[in-house]
Amino acid sequence: MKVQAFIEEMERLAPPDLAEDFDAGRIGLIVEGTPEFSTVCCALDATPAVVKEAIRMKAGMLVVHHTPLWTPITAVTGSTATLMRDVLPAGLNIWVMHTNYDRADEGVNDALAELLSLSDVSPLSLGRIGTCTISPAEISRRLGCPLRVWGTLGSIKRLAIVAGSGFDPGFLTEAKERGADTFLSAEMKHAVARSAPLPCIEATHYALEAPAMVRLADRRGWHYIDDPPVLHTLP
Amino acid sequence: MKVQAFIEEMERLAPPDLAEDFDAGRIGLIVEGTPEFSTVCCALDATPAVVKEAIRMKAGMLVVHHTPLWTPITAVTGSTATLMRDVLPAGLNIWVMHTNYDRADEGVNDALAELLSLSDVSPLSLGRIGTCTISPAEISRRLGCPLRVWGTLGSIKRLAIVAGSGFDPGFLTEAKERGADTFLSAEMKHAVARSAPLPCIEATHYALEAPAMVRLADRRGWHYIDDPPVLHTLP
Amino acid sequence: MKVQAFIEEMERLAPPDLAEDFDAGRIGLIVEGTPEFSTVCCALDATPAVVKEAIRMKAGMLVVHHTPLWTPITAVTGSTATLMRDVLPAGLNIWVMHTNYDRADEGVNDALAELLSLSDVSPLSLGRIGTCTISPAEISRRLGCPLRVWGTLGSIKRLAIVAGSGFDPGFLTEAKERGADTFLSAEMKHAVARSAPLPCIEATHYALEAPAMVRLADRRGWHYIDDPPVLHTLP
Amino acid sequence: MKVQAFIEEMERLAPPDLAEDFDAGRIGLIVEGTPEFSTVCCALDATPAVVKEAIRMKAGMLVVHHTPLWTPITAVTGSTATLMRDVLPAGLNIWVMHTNYDRADEGVNDALAELLSLSDVSPLSLGRIGTCTISPAEISRRLGCPLRVWGTLGSIKRLAIVAGSGFDPGFLTEAKERGADTFLSAEMKHAVARSAPLPCIEATHYALEAPAMVRLADRRGWHYIDDPPVLHTLP
Amino acid sequence: MKVQAFIEEMERLAPPDLAEDFDAGRIGLIVEGTPEFSTVCCALDATPAVVKEAIRMKAGMLVVHHTPLWTPITAVTGSTATLMRDVLPAGLNIWVMHTNYDRADEGVNDALAELLSLSDVSPLSLGRIGTCTISPAEISRRLGCPLRVWGTLGSIKRLAIVAGSGFDPGFLTEAKERGADTFLSAEMKHAVARSAPLPCIEATHYALEAPAMVRLADRRGWHYIDDPPVLHTLP
Amino acid sequence: MKVQAFIEEMERLAPPDLAEDFDAGRIGLIVEGTPEFSTVCCALDATPAVVKEAIRMKAGMLVVHHTPLWTPITAVTGSTATLMRDVLPAGLNIWVMHTNYDRADEGVNDALAELLSLSDVSPLSLGRIGTCTISPAEISRRLGCPLRVWGTLGSIKRLAIVAGSGFDPGFLTEAKERGADTFLSAEMKHAVARSAPLPCIEATHYALEAPAMVRLADRRGWHYIDDPPVLHTLP
Repeated sequence: MKVQAFIEEMERLAPPDLAEDFDAGRIGLIVEGTPEFSTVCCALDATPAVVKEAIRMKAGMLVVHHTPLWTPITAVTGSTATLMRDVLPAGLNIWVMHTNYDRADEGVNDALAELLSLSDVSPLSLGRIGTCTISPAEISRRLGCPLRVWGTLGSIKRLAIVAGSGFDPGFLTEAKERGADTFLSAEMKHAVARSAPLPCIEATHYALEAPAMVRLADRRGWHYIDDPPVLHTLP
Repeated sequence: MKVQAFIEEMERLAPPDLAEDFDAGRIGLIVEGTPEFSTVCCALDATPAVVKEAIRMKAGMLVVHHTPLWTPITAVTGSTATLMRDVLPAGLNIWVMHTNYDRADEGVNDALAELLSLSDVSPLSLGRIGTCTISPAEISRRLGCPLRVWGTLGSIKRLAIVAGSGFDPGFLTEAKERGADTFLSAEMKHAVARSAPLPCIEATHYALEAPAMVRLADRRGWHYIDDPPVLHTLP
Repeated sequence: MKVQAFIEEMERLAPPDLAEDFDAGRIGLIVEGTPEFSTVCCALDATPAVVKEAIRMKAGMLVVHHTPLWTPITAVTGSTATLMRDVLPAGLNIWVMHTNYDRADEGVNDALAELLSLSDVSPLSLGRIGTCTISPAEISRRLGCPLRVWGTLGSIKRLAIVAGSGFDPGFLTEAKERGADTFLSAEMKHAVARSAPLPCIEATHYALEAPAMVRLADRRGWHYIDDPPVLHTLP
Repeated sequence: MKVQAFIEEMERLAPPDLAEDFDAGRIGLIVEGTPEFSTVCCALDATPAVVKEAIRMKAGMLVVHHTPLWTPITAVTGSTATLMRDVLPAGLNIWVMHTNYDRADEGVNDALAELLSLSDVSPLSLGRIGTCTISPAEISRRLGCPLRVWGTLGSIKRLAIVAGSGFDPGFLTEAKERGADTFLSAEMKHAVARSAPLPCIEATHYALEAPAMVRLADRRGWHYIDDPPVLHTLP
Repeated sequence: MKVQAFIEEMERLAPPDLAEDFDAGRIGLIVEGTPEFSTVCCALDATPAVVKEAIRMKAGMLVVHHTPLWTPITAVTGSTATLMRDVLPAGLNIWVMHTNYDRADEGVNDALAELLSLSDVSPLSLGRIGTCTISPAEISRRLGCPLRVWGTLGSIKRLAIVAGSGFDPGFLTEAKERGADTFLSAEMKHAVARSAPLPCIEATHYALEAPAMVRLADRRGWHYIDDPPVLHTLP
Repeated sequence: MKVQAFIEEMERLAPPDLAEDFDAGRIGLIVEGTPEFSTVCCALDATPAVVKEAIRMKAGMLVVHHTPLWTPITAVTGSTATLMRDVLPAGLNIWVMHTNYDRADEGVNDALAELLSLSDVSPLSLGRIGTCTISPAEISRRLGCPLRVWGTLGSIKRLAIVAGSGFDPGFLTEAKERGADTFLSAEMKHAVARSAPLPCIEATHYALEAPAMVRLADRRGWHYIDDPPVLHTLP
């Protein structure tokens, strides 16, 4: 496949102008490799392990959700140099879909809703609300990560979900007003937990966003490379 | 005790000019109540429950670490109005010590180091490093909160601690270079966990900072009012 | 009356989106008191004397033109604490209509034009121009305040008025070009007076804006509480 | 006299680095005329009338307190062109001393204190405080302008004065704390008058600042050109 | 001719709202002279020599491309005073057409294209592209200035031109993509030359923009005053 | 040689804290290659041709004056990708000394003064002034580039030089006041040439700065790679 044709296909899937302003310059083809390729890999992050595996599989394109070049650079040193020393000689292209994919139809929140078997789903500012029939333990099992529960969980009927880092006071208030009894997201902060108007389930950023990349890989015949953070709870 | 005398005492304990610039106007006497009082209460946050308990105890002064008026306001409505409707008629003064207390001698990081029985302690940018002889399970027990462990823990010998929200890439690198094998703080983010150079133990903001307020209350004969967030883990 | 119903009524009267950008967060319900009330008071400013009188009259709502919380605060101390210690326990709501009311139909400039019996009135950028048949002495009498006259008054035929602080070089030029022979406003500055293209009558801010609040109170059956600044001239 | 020698003399009198930052580029030689001259005129403002009189007197230098070029210009049109068409062909230099003169020894506030026969004078942030033995009517007479009195005057013992536009809440508080019972300045604003902690006498900017220019002219043998704003009060 | 009538004519020729934002306040009537005049002069810059010649010719209006008052001033001294001492007493008006004229039909780029006999001309972002049949030596001759050639010139077929300072990487790329084989402009910078995608001919700013003023003067019966910078090359 | 030892040596030669603020992050080791090397190359710019030659010579370190990564990037594409695909697999380190080298003893201006045999040299703001005994034609020959002369050259006695882009009105005035009769630099602009107080010789940025890199290479036994821009003049 030619890079240009792939770009056109991806821009139909997740149009760049859906992205937040802060993503300007941080999505799309952020590393330019070989102009033609046959194998595509997909992951949430372009970690060193993911890149090595993609190269081992002779991939010419790696599709990720998070760019490895978030902070603008004027030097190629340290971990950036290490990564680029693998990526560039291998001719690996890297394509990033971030907030444009979050907002696209069939994007990260829809994939999460599907994984959790939510029904009667409708959109929130940056997430979804839907009827939930599975238990918190089952949520943990499907996400593949331990959970932290802030506040006292009742039985979950209407669950608000925001993939990624979504514990924002405004989103919590909106979810509550829209009928949610529980809120699922990642990266809780103390000040937010203190005034949360409904109980919150905290998973990991990875667990909430990876399902969309898995599903995307499945549908397109790409290879998904799983690389979750190592995490366990105590006691 | 007169408010003015109390202020002088507190400013010796945690001089205002130790505070970060962002604390300007957010520390010191942030609610002005009765000019004279005998009972002092102390807590981490001025939550509604804390304020009600302080009033029930007929306190004239409440000392907290986090101001309830962080965002500047041009209206007294919603939760601010609710709080002020309790606080003002009761004549309750509220005194805030934030980053000035973090940096004061015998401040929040020293209290945390003491609680965890660290020895051979020396300062980091915004925390401490010390020799740790207790297990992660014992750390969890003493902090009174469940822990999340990111990465693979070996046996902990030199532990870096930052009370509050301290998982910053620069702090992690500094801790590693200074010989730490494990890093304890709160509010981990995905991007930081992905590139952490050493295993990280995530407690809660409350669990890490409250010990300093407890110790302060003990030493001064104040009443500490405990109000931790309700939190448990799954599975 | 319920607060919510009152808000809807007021927002029809002076729609919030007519306000200048600098009024964002400074108009509307800026102190939240009792959710239901029967007595409404009205004044230009929420001074201590006005608030005390409103409470004495058992008002549940005070409508003013100038917010008492202009500068955003992160502490409730000094005169703010004094005011709030009266307002909050009494359950008094405070509603502010500022530049949205200036610009509303039947707003502050229209009330002033009516008080001065202007005829053939048309709008200026931020005021009105109209035919005036009363003398300067009569203007002073109706406004209830002494006047300062800058420049040499001829007989007034077409009078430009800007309630509040309106001696702006651009407004003066506009008024002159639109046929005004005299300009009435408040808070003259030296540099403006030096180059004014027409004679200026300086009243007080209070005298020019209060008539609108008086008329509003009259029409709605509210109690107007008068609290003009104490002012006299010498010699 | 040569311009360069005159500049050196003036910079000793009112050193440029005493000026506020906002005066950068707005003080000193702001119009460059003939390099040598014998006659110097002096005024508060470089109004058209002042300039014409200076030219009629064949002055080569005009010393003023307020620059006629406050707002930076990219065009010489309108009143600027009118002024410059008089000034430039006549070879008239214009020298401005503004906040540097306010702060200089023997500057505008000292001249005002002397005019009002204040004794036991000490400095305030931007003015002076002194013992006053003359009546308000006599103050009006000496200043040559009508006064507005805000609040209720008692007998004046300690008078705070700020030449120019000095009704600032911080200055009023400072004056009160330093023992003033009355405050004299110009250009009162509504919000300031509402919360003034002591009675205020409002003169004009001109009346308060011109005495310093008169005195300067007297001492140096220059010609003072008086051009006060035309002002009277009603009723 | 009356100034007002002249202004209306000029604003039809080069409408002010075509100008770049940075030209706000820097175009139009930037020196106001006599209200009526018969002789008009025209030049690229209002240099001292140009102004003296215009006055010698008893012109009442001077039309230029570059304002002599680019940097906003708060003082009329040095070269500004020198210029104004000539201009103002002579009653000379100065009219500036800058980026509004660049963009107007029949503006600076069209005049340059005509001078170089380009055919099949179409617009670029800020210039033109056209078929060129004259040699570089002939270009130099017609422009009346020596040229610097960056890179290796082939035979010129499609020439991109930007009058003024147009060696911008984005413009060069656009020109190349639009089929240009050579790029003509002024004020080359090292970093741009290093990565230029096509050979560049550098003339002078004056040589590229003056033709438009010459043509304008010709068509309107004005006097063009030529004042090119003195320039020659070595060896 | 080890990279760390080389860095220490270079930082003694041109200390990083001599650099302008805008160079922050743009000097020092801006591409990290092999940790140990024996061959060092040196050039003014890291152009593709320079990099290819350095790699052909099996250099492990390339020292340049201008970083190839001036604009911060969030993507490695286009010419950056092309460059990095050569540089990274070859293990080539790139070291940048920019304004810190300009200001270092024996830096770019001193090398230029030496090349032109200036005597009695003293520093200017950003350059040097010295007695010149060679002709303009000889200056051109030594610099190896054609010159443009703006204004009329007399015989050169005291020559001001600024390596790089130094035709700044402030520098020109300073040079004139310090006794210079001619000014040599690169990248003249129209507005500057119009008001230049002394005749100006314009060379190229490359020709003025490369001598310092040549001399540095000579002294240290590095290989200098020459890559001047292709430039000739017409007629």
